[in-house]
Amino acid sequence: MTRCRLFAASALLAVSSLASAELTPEQAERAVETRQSVLHLMGWNIGPLGAMARGRMDFDVDRVQTNAGRLVALANMLPDAFAPDTRANEVSTEALDVIWEQPEAFAAKIQATIDASNRLVEAAAGGDENAMREAIGGLGSTCGSCHDDFRADD
Amino acid sequence: MTRCRLFAASALLAVSSLASAELTPEQAERAVETRQSVLHLMGWNIGPLGAMARGRMDFDVDRVQTNAGRLVALANMLPDAFAPDTRANEVSTEALDVIWEQPEAFAAKIQATIDASNRLVEAAAGGDENAMREAIGGLGSTCGSCHDDFRADD
Repeated sequence: MTRCRLFAASALLAVSSLASAELTPEQAERAVETRQSVLHLMGWNIGPLGAMARGRMDFDVDRVQTNAGRLVALANMLPDAFAPDTRANEVSTEALDVIWEQPEAFAAKIQATIDASNRLVEAAAGGDENAMREAIGGLGSTCGSCHDDFRADD
Repeated sequence: MTRCRLFAASALLAVSSLASAELTPEQAERAVETRQSVLHLMGWNIGPLGAMARGRMDFDVDRVQTNAGRLVALANMLPDAFAPDTRANEVSTEALDVIWEQPEAFAAKIQATIDASNRLVEAAAGGDENAMREAIGGLGSTCGSCHDDFRADD
Protein backbone atom coordinates (compact mmCIF):
# COMPACT_ATOMS: atom_id res chain seq x y z
CA MET A 1 0.00 0.00 0.00
CA THR A 2 2.86 2.34 0.91
CA ARG A 3 4.47 1.55 -2.41
CA CYS A 4 1.18 2.25 -4.22
CA ARG A 5 0.79 5.60 -2.51
CA LEU A 6 4.34 6.58 -3.31
CA PHE A 7 3.82 5.62 -6.91
CA ALA A 8 0.57 7.59 -7.10
CA ALA A 9 2.24 10.63 -5.54
CA SER A 10 5.16 10.54 -7.94
CA ALA A 11 2.79 10.06 -10.87
CA LEU A 12 0.79 13.12 -9.81
CA LEU A 13 3.99 15.09 -9.42
CA ALA A 14 5.10 14.07 -12.88
CA VAL A 15 1.78 15.12 -14.45
CA SER A 16 1.78 18.39 -12.52
CA SER A 17 5.37 19.19 -13.53
CA LEU A 18 4.57 18.41 -17.14
CA ALA A 19 1.54 20.68 -17.15
CA SER A 20 3.14 23.65 -15.38
CA ALA A 21 6.63 23.44 -16.91
CA GLU A 22 7.22 25.88 -19.73
CA LEU A 23 6.88 24.20 -23.09
CA THR A 24 9.43 24.48 -25.88
CA PRO A 25 8.08 26.26 -28.98
CA GLU A 26 7.81 22.88 -30.73
CA GLN A 27 5.96 21.29 -27.79
CA ALA A 28 3.57 24.24 -27.66
CA GLU A 29 2.84 24.05 -31.40
CA ARG A 30 2.15 20.33 -31.10
CA ALA A 31 -0.12 20.93 -28.10
CA VAL A 32 -2.15 23.48 -30.09
CA GLU A 33 -2.33 21.07 -33.03
CA THR A 34 -3.52 18.27 -30.75
CA ARG A 35 -6.38 20.21 -29.15
CA GLN A 36 -7.40 21.70 -32.51
CA SER A 37 -7.41 18.19 -34.00
CA VAL A 38 -9.76 16.90 -31.29
CA LEU A 39 -12.11 19.85 -31.71
CA HIS A 40 -11.99 19.69 -35.51
CA LEU A 41 -12.97 16.01 -35.44
CA MET A 42 -15.76 16.75 -32.97
CA GLY A 43 -17.12 19.32 -35.43
CA TRP A 44 -16.69 16.89 -38.33
CA ASN A 45 -18.76 14.29 -36.51
CA ILE A 46 -21.44 16.57 -35.09
CA GLY A 47 -21.96 18.51 -38.33
CA PRO A 48 -24.23 15.97 -40.09
CA LEU A 49 -26.05 15.25 -36.82
CA GLY A 50 -26.91 18.95 -36.49
CA ALA A 51 -28.19 18.91 -40.06
CA MET A 52 -30.42 15.90 -39.23
CA ALA A 53 -31.70 17.54 -36.05
CA ARG A 54 -32.62 20.69 -38.01
CA GLY A 55 -34.41 18.67 -40.72
CA ARG A 56 -31.88 19.58 -43.40
CA MET A 57 -30.87 15.95 -43.85
CA ASP A 58 -32.81 12.69 -43.42
CA PHE A 59 -32.12 10.90 -40.15
CA ASP A 60 -29.66 8.05 -40.68
CA VAL A 61 -29.59 6.01 -37.47
CA ASP A 62 -26.41 4.15 -38.47
CA ARG A 63 -24.63 7.46 -38.99
CA VAL A 64 -25.89 8.84 -35.67
CA GLN A 65 -24.70 5.71 -33.85
CA THR A 66 -21.28 5.80 -35.52
CA ASN A 67 -20.70 9.51 -34.95
CA ALA A 68 -22.06 9.42 -31.39
CA GLY A 69 -19.54 6.71 -30.50
CA ARG A 70 -16.75 8.78 -32.05
CA LEU A 71 -17.87 11.88 -30.13
CA VAL A 72 -17.64 9.99 -26.83
CA ALA A 73 -14.10 8.88 -27.69
CA LEU A 74 -13.11 12.41 -28.75
CA ALA A 75 -14.72 14.20 -25.80
CA ASN A 76 -12.79 11.89 -23.48
CA MET A 77 -9.55 13.08 -25.11
CA LEU A 78 -10.23 16.72 -24.18
CA PRO A 79 -8.72 16.67 -20.65
CA ASP A 80 -5.40 15.27 -21.92
CA ALA A 81 -5.47 17.50 -24.99
CA PHE A 82 -5.82 20.67 -22.89
CA ALA A 83 -3.40 19.58 -20.13
CA PRO A 84 -0.35 21.33 -21.65
CA ASP A 85 -0.55 24.97 -20.55
CA THR A 86 0.52 27.17 -23.47
CA ARG A 87 -0.10 30.54 -21.77
CA ALA A 88 3.61 31.36 -21.65
CA ASN A 89 4.16 30.47 -25.33
CA GLU A 90 3.73 32.52 -28.49
CA VAL A 91 1.14 30.40 -30.25
CA SER A 92 -1.78 31.12 -32.53
CA THR A 93 -4.76 29.88 -30.53
CA GLU A 94 -8.36 30.65 -29.67
CA ALA A 95 -7.93 28.96 -26.28
CA LEU A 96 -8.31 31.58 -23.54
CA ASP A 97 -6.01 31.76 -20.49
CA VAL A 98 -9.02 31.14 -18.25
CA ILE A 99 -8.80 27.45 -19.24
CA TRP A 100 -5.70 27.10 -17.04
CA GLU A 101 -6.69 29.83 -14.55
CA GLN A 102 -9.98 28.09 -13.68
CA PRO A 103 -9.23 24.41 -14.31
CA GLU A 104 -12.19 23.14 -12.27
CA ALA A 105 -14.69 25.23 -14.21
CA PHE A 106 -13.16 24.06 -17.48
CA ALA A 107 -13.17 20.42 -16.34
CA ALA A 108 -16.88 20.76 -15.52
CA LYS A 109 -17.62 21.98 -19.06
CA ILE A 110 -15.70 19.05 -20.51
CA GLN A 111 -17.57 16.62 -18.26
CA ALA A 112 -20.88 18.09 -19.44
CA THR A 113 -19.82 17.39 -23.04
CA ILE A 114 -18.77 13.83 -22.19
CA ASP A 115 -22.12 13.26 -20.43
CA ALA A 116 -24.07 14.71 -23.36
CA SER A 117 -22.13 12.50 -25.79
CA ASN A 118 -23.00 9.44 -23.73
CA ARG A 119 -26.67 10.45 -23.72
CA LEU A 120 -26.52 10.70 -27.51
CA VAL A 121 -25.09 7.16 -27.71
CA GLU A 122 -28.07 5.94 -25.64
CA ALA A 123 -30.57 7.84 -27.78
CA ALA A 124 -28.97 6.53 -30.98
CA ALA A 125 -29.15 2.95 -29.66
CA GLY A 126 -32.90 3.42 -29.19
CA GLY A 127 -33.24 4.94 -32.66
CA ASP A 128 -36.15 7.28 -31.82
CA GLU A 129 -35.87 10.46 -33.89
CA ASN A 130 -37.22 12.80 -31.23
CA ALA A 131 -34.87 11.38 -28.61
CA MET A 132 -31.92 11.69 -31.00
CA ARG A 133 -32.90 15.26 -31.91
CA GLU A 134 -33.07 16.20 -28.23
CA ALA A 135 -29.73 14.55 -27.46
CA ILE A 136 -28.03 16.22 -30.44
CA GLY A 137 -29.37 19.60 -29.27
CA GLY A 138 -28.17 18.88 -25.75
CA LEU A 139 -24.68 18.06 -26.96
CA GLY A 140 -24.60 21.16 -29.16
CA SER A 141 -25.53 23.28 -26.14
CA THR A 142 -22.58 21.96 -24.13
CA CYS A 143 -20.23 22.81 -27.03
CA GLY A 144 -21.60 26.35 -27.23
CA SER A 145 -21.54 26.84 -23.46
CA CYS A 146 -17.84 25.96 -23.31
CA HIS A 147 -16.99 28.13 -26.33
CA ASP A 148 -18.80 31.11 -24.71
CA ASP A 149 -16.48 31.06 -21.70
CA PHE A 150 -13.24 29.49 -22.85
CA ARG A 151 -12.78 30.31 -26.56
CA ALA A 152 -11.84 33.67 -28.07
CA ASP A 153 -14.66 35.30 -30.06
CA ASP A 154 -14.15 35.07 -33.82
CA MET B 1 -35.90 -7.18 -49.22
CA THR B 2 -36.22 -5.33 -52.54
CA ARG B 3 -36.63 -2.08 -50.63
CA CYS B 4 -33.51 -2.84 -48.60
CA ARG B 5 -31.51 -3.52 -51.74
CA LEU B 6 -32.76 -0.35 -53.39
CA PHE B 7 -31.86 1.62 -50.29
CA ALA B 8 -28.40 0.09 -50.16
CA ALA B 9 -27.85 0.80 -53.85
CA SER B 10 -28.91 4.44 -53.53
CA ALA B 11 -26.75 4.86 -50.42
CA LEU B 12 -23.74 3.51 -52.30
CA LEU B 13 -24.50 5.82 -55.21
CA ALA B 14 -24.70 8.79 -52.86
CA VAL B 15 -21.36 7.95 -51.25
CA SER B 16 -19.77 7.36 -54.63
CA SER B 17 -21.11 10.67 -56.02
CA LEU B 18 -19.88 12.53 -52.97
CA ALA B 19 -16.42 11.04 -53.24
CA SER B 20 -15.95 11.61 -56.96
CA ALA B 21 -17.60 15.04 -57.22
CA GLU B 22 -15.13 17.89 -57.41
CA LEU B 23 -14.77 19.63 -54.08
CA THR B 24 -14.92 23.37 -53.56
CA PRO B 25 -11.63 24.88 -52.28
CA GLU B 26 -13.17 25.17 -48.81
CA GLN B 27 -14.41 21.57 -48.82
CA ALA B 28 -10.99 20.38 -49.96
CA GLU B 29 -9.20 22.34 -47.21
CA ARG B 30 -11.56 20.90 -44.61
CA ALA B 31 -11.03 17.39 -45.97
CA VAL B 32 -7.26 17.79 -45.62
CA GLU B 33 -7.68 19.17 -42.11
CA THR B 34 -9.90 16.22 -41.17
CA ARG B 35 -7.51 13.51 -42.32
CA GLN B 36 -4.51 15.33 -40.82
CA SER B 37 -6.41 15.62 -37.52
CA VAL B 38 -7.05 11.87 -37.40
CA LEU B 39 -3.42 11.08 -38.19
CA HIS B 40 -2.09 13.70 -35.76
CA LEU B 41 -4.16 12.20 -32.95
CA MET B 42 -3.02 8.70 -33.87
CA GLY B 43 0.59 9.90 -33.53
CA TRP B 44 -0.24 11.68 -30.27
CA ASN B 45 -1.61 8.45 -28.82
CA ILE B 46 1.00 6.05 -30.17
CA GLY B 47 3.98 8.27 -29.24
CA PRO B 48 4.19 7.32 -25.55
CA LEU B 49 3.43 3.68 -26.37
CA GLY B 50 6.42 3.59 -28.72
CA ALA B 51 8.56 5.07 -25.93
CA MET B 52 7.39 2.33 -23.56
CA ALA B 53 8.01 -0.40 -26.12
CA ARG B 54 11.57 0.89 -26.65
CA GLY B 55 12.27 1.03 -22.91
CA ARG B 56 12.52 4.84 -22.84
CA MET B 57 9.51 5.12 -20.53
CA ASP B 58 8.16 2.79 -17.84
CA PHE B 59 5.19 0.72 -18.93
CA ASP B 60 1.93 2.26 -17.67
CA VAL B 61 -0.85 -0.27 -18.32
CA ASP B 62 -3.63 2.28 -17.72
CA ARG B 63 -2.08 4.58 -20.32
CA VAL B 64 -1.69 1.73 -22.82
CA GLN B 65 -5.33 0.71 -22.31
CA THR B 66 -6.59 4.29 -22.72
CA ASN B 67 -4.51 5.06 -25.78
CA ALA B 68 -5.21 1.68 -27.40
CA GLY B 69 -8.95 2.33 -27.14
CA ARG B 70 -8.48 5.76 -28.69
CA LEU B 71 -6.37 4.29 -31.51
CA VAL B 72 -9.17 1.86 -32.38
CA ALA B 73 -11.66 4.74 -32.53
CA LEU B 74 -9.31 6.88 -34.63
CA ALA B 75 -8.29 4.09 -37.02
CA ASN B 76 -11.97 3.43 -37.68
CA MET B 77 -12.36 7.08 -38.77
CA LEU B 78 -9.73 6.71 -41.53
CA PRO B 79 -12.05 5.39 -44.29
CA ASP B 80 -14.46 8.33 -43.88
CA ALA B 81 -11.60 10.80 -43.45
CA PHE B 82 -9.99 9.77 -46.74
CA ALA B 83 -13.26 9.42 -48.70
CA PRO B 84 -13.15 12.96 -50.13
CA ASP B 85 -10.91 12.81 -53.20
CA THR B 86 -8.79 15.98 -53.30
CA ARG B 87 -6.72 15.06 -56.36
CA ALA B 88 -8.34 17.79 -58.47
CA ASN B 89 -7.83 20.48 -55.82
CA GLU B 90 -4.85 22.70 -55.05
CA VAL B 91 -4.17 21.63 -51.51
CA SER B 92 -1.04 21.24 -49.41
CA THR B 93 -1.02 17.53 -48.63
CA GLU B 94 1.28 14.55 -48.25
CA ALA B 95 -1.52 12.24 -49.39
CA LEU B 96 -0.51 10.62 -52.69
CA ASP B 97 -2.92 10.25 -55.63
CA VAL B 98 -2.53 6.47 -55.42
CA ILE B 99 -4.89 6.56 -52.40
CA TRP B 100 -7.80 7.20 -54.78
CA GLU B 101 -6.27 5.39 -57.76
CA GLN B 102 -5.96 2.10 -55.83
CA PRO B 103 -8.75 2.32 -53.25
CA GLU B 104 -8.76 -1.41 -52.50
CA ALA B 105 -5.05 -1.47 -51.70
CA PHE B 106 -5.48 1.59 -49.48
CA ALA B 107 -8.51 0.08 -47.73
CA ALA B 108 -6.45 -3.06 -47.01
CA LYS B 109 -3.75 -0.93 -45.32
CA ILE B 110 -6.38 0.81 -43.19
CA GLN B 111 -7.90 -2.54 -42.23
CA ALA B 112 -4.47 -3.80 -41.16
CA THR B 113 -4.15 -0.75 -38.87
CA ILE B 114 -7.63 -1.30 -37.41
CA ASP B 115 -6.80 -4.98 -36.81
CA ALA B 116 -3.46 -4.10 -35.18
CA SER B 117 -5.19 -1.52 -32.94
CA ASN B 118 -7.69 -4.14 -31.82
CA ARG B 119 -4.84 -6.56 -31.05
CA LEU B 120 -3.24 -3.84 -28.91
CA VAL B 121 -6.51 -3.42 -26.97
CA GLU B 122 -6.48 -7.17 -26.25
CA ALA B 123 -2.82 -7.12 -25.20
CA ALA B 124 -3.41 -4.09 -22.95
CA ALA B 125 -6.38 -5.83 -21.30
CA GLY B 126 -4.06 -8.72 -20.42
CA GLY B 127 -1.40 -6.33 -19.14
CA ASP B 128 1.61 -8.49 -20.08
CA GLU B 129 4.54 -6.24 -21.05
CA ASN B 130 5.92 -8.52 -23.74
CA ALA B 131 2.51 -8.91 -25.34
CA MET B 132 1.98 -5.12 -25.25
CA ARG B 133 5.46 -4.50 -26.70
CA GLU B 134 4.75 -6.90 -29.55
CA ALA B 135 1.33 -5.38 -30.25
CA ILE B 136 2.73 -1.83 -30.20
CA GLY B 137 5.43 -2.88 -32.66
CA GLY B 138 2.81 -4.55 -34.84
CA LEU B 139 0.69 -1.41 -34.94
CA GLY B 140 3.72 0.75 -35.70
CA SER B 141 4.57 -1.51 -38.63
CA THR B 142 1.12 -1.05 -40.16
CA CYS B 143 1.51 2.75 -39.88
CA GLY B 144 4.91 2.62 -41.58
CA SER B 145 3.73 0.22 -44.27
CA CYS B 146 0.89 2.59 -45.27
CA HIS B 147 3.16 5.66 -45.18
CA ASP B 148 5.67 3.89 -47.46
CA ASP B 149 3.12 3.49 -50.23
CA PHE B 150 0.59 6.26 -49.75
CA ARG B 151 2.37 9.25 -48.17
CA ALA B 152 4.83 11.60 -49.88
CA ASP B 153 8.41 11.28 -48.61
CA ASP B 154 9.47 14.12 -46.32
